[in-house]
Amino acid sequence: MASVTVRSSSHDYEVLIGKGLRRNLGEVISSGYTSILVITDSTVQDYYLQDVQESLAEAAPVFSAVVPAGESSKSMGRYEDLLDRCVELKLDRNSLIIALGGGMIGDLAGFVASTYLRGIDYIQMPTTILAHDSSVGGKVAINHPKGKNLIGSFYHPVKVIYDMETIETLPESEIRSGYGEVIKHAFLSDAEWAHRLLKGKLSELSVDQLENDLMRGIQVKASIVEKDEREAGIRKYLNLGHTLAHAIEAELGYGEITHGEAVAVGLLLMMKLSNDLKGAELPLQDYKEWLIRNHYPISVLNRIHPEQMVEKMKLDKKTLRQKINFVLLHELSDPYVVEIEENQLVEHMSLLMNEVSGE
Amino acid sequence: MASVTVRSSSHDYEVLIGKGLRRNLGEVISSGYTSILVITDSTVQDYYLQDVQESLAEAAPVFSAVVPAGESSKSMGRYEDLLDRCVELKLDRNSLIIALGGGMIGDLAGFVASTYLRGIDYIQMPTTILAHDSSVGGKVAINHPKGKNLIGSFYHPVKVIYDMETIETLPESEIRSGYGEVIKHAFLSDAEWAHRLLKGKLSELSVDQLENDLMRGIQVKASIVEKDEREAGIRKYLNLGHTLAHAIEAELGYGEITHGEAVAVGLLLMMKLSNDLKGAELPLQDYKEWLIRNHYPISVLNRIHPEQMVEKMKLDKKTLRQKINFVLLHELSDPYVVEIEENQLVEHMSLLMNEVSGE
Repeated sequence: MASVTVRSSSHDYEVLIGKGLRRNLGEVISSGYTSILVITDSTVQDYYLQDVQESLAEAAPVFSAVVPAGESSKSMGRYEDLLDRCVELKLDRNSLIIALGGGMIGDLAGFVASTYLRGIDYIQMPTTILAHDSSVGGKVAINHPKGKNLIGSFYHPVKVIYDMETIETLPESEIRSGYGEVIKHAFLSDAEWAHRLLKGKLSELSVDQLENDLMRGIQVKASIVEKDEREAGIRKYLNLGHTLAHAIEAELGYGEITHGEAVAVGLLLMMKLSNDLKGAELPLQDYKEWLIRNHYPISVLNRIHPEQMVEKMKLDKKTLRQKINFVLLHELSDPYVVEIEENQLVEHMSLLMNEVSGE
Repeated sequence: MASVTVRSSSHDYEVLIGKGLRRNLGEVISSGYTSILVITDSTVQDYYLQDVQESLAEAAPVFSAVVPAGESSKSMGRYEDLLDRCVELKLDRNSLIIALGGGMIGDLAGFVASTYLRGIDYIQMPTTILAHDSSVGGKVAINHPKGKNLIGSFYHPVKVIYDMETIETLPESEIRSGYGEVIKHAFLSDAEWAHRLLKGKLSELSVDQLENDLMRGIQVKASIVEKDEREAGIRKYLNLGHTLAHAIEAELGYGEITHGEAVAVGLLLMMKLSNDLKGAELPLQDYKEWLIRNHYPISVLNRIHPEQMVEKMKLDKKTLRQKINFVLLHELSDPYVVEIEENQLVEHMSLLMNEVSGE
């Protein structure tokens, strides 16, 4: 079992990574909780809920709440339902919520925990690679019909427990999605790691490599959010690739493309802008080949319109006074934030679309 | 203009108290907000909304949202409506929310501010004496059908602005309600202040006395919440009188008796328990006379049933594992928390009811 400690303004917490942790929760969770509510989704339920409940049986009375799988559960309606359930079960200030699932569950259950009785303890138990990113850093939220994550809090878990067994058997599309954020963390932090990833093929990943990549991704995330918890400064770097990703997701409808895939495509534009507009020499060709080799859906670039993308970017909550800010790289591991003119953005997006249209 | 600085874990903020501040907001509010949303209720709107909007006109675009006056607006439905309004107005991370009103508005607007875009700046502008208590300390919340303040956050304002002119003209019932919390702050902190208050009559209060009492009340509150922001320890002392108060409010229905009046009645039981069970020598008789002289509705004690009150107390979110904890006083300014047995509670409540039934 490996672990990373994350420092937050309210408390420090550990990220534990190891095999079969879901079966030994009694040993890694603090005692003294009056009751525990496991929040999960209809897919994860079938695989892991019973293990989790059984391994907690001696710790406290354990209850569960299951929401339908999929991003549409990150809604005001589900949030209210879950609060009702907390009230009905008489969870008190010494109760614990466990978020068992991917990023959707972490965000939803975390937001419930952050606002029930003005905040009770919660633990993140991510079951996807992608959630290595969202489970650390304390961002929790639900969606508003007008935009993703518009309602939420900054609220840190008391622990993150990553059972490697829950991600070893993921389908290739989930691995692809997760590695969209993993490679972002590599681009942000370490050229050597990035180059090593770019040489690889996701379908040939070993479990040890996966565990190592996850741990390093979490360390990158943790070291940034420790310095800037509320995204006043450098936390913005974590949005590398995300400006276009959010616009693509909004344009195609959530569910058409996974978040991590959209980020991976967004990173391609980031490289293009960094190189062509700002004179960097990022390995754009290697990255394009990596995307193709691993079946990332770069063909979505043929289905979007640059002008519409720019309009979506302006609606994104991270834009201020209608300016479009991008995170770019001077070189691998050296990010910065810069405002990009609309017409330049449209032009380089069109160029990129031409370049990939034959691939 | 007087001011107190409150230290919180996230930032320090000032409480400003002075006459006519609502007309000079441009001078006391930081510049650089992209837009401002003033949230108020249908009663306060008529008196002060225009002044506030006019004095901010140069600072940024100013919008308003008005909810019906009364505790029933502290609901999930109104919370959602206000979030919709924030989205519709495109408030961004550099926007400001102003909570203009009593405790209900402060709690509701503060909860909106704490969760919109994971938290944007807000300012408390209390317009009641009672709100001197709730506007400081960062507790924001809405009600759940099953209980008050079950959903909320700890989230501090960037400023509290108390325009004395908005409370000089309050009806006597509002002054009475406000002084329920003022006298609690005196009991918690300073015997001399408490004795001076007990000699007085609220209808004869001077504006200077009122300002002085408010400032001292805010200082007491601030000094306690600075030491224990999340109510892990001494912040519980602020619940002095509240265990019975919440039960009375729940029993009679919110609106039948004001919160401050319920606290004032709750303080009577606190004194009774402190003296008769724990050997203190608090000025119970003086306090009873003060309540009567100032028309506090102590006759509610004839309309409640001790056993039912105890059941309500057990439902209160502050009870843990069904124990009933009370804050009592060894002597004025010396609070402590103690568990009281149910049968003793019923007995002393009955005794108190007999004592006041003739008054």
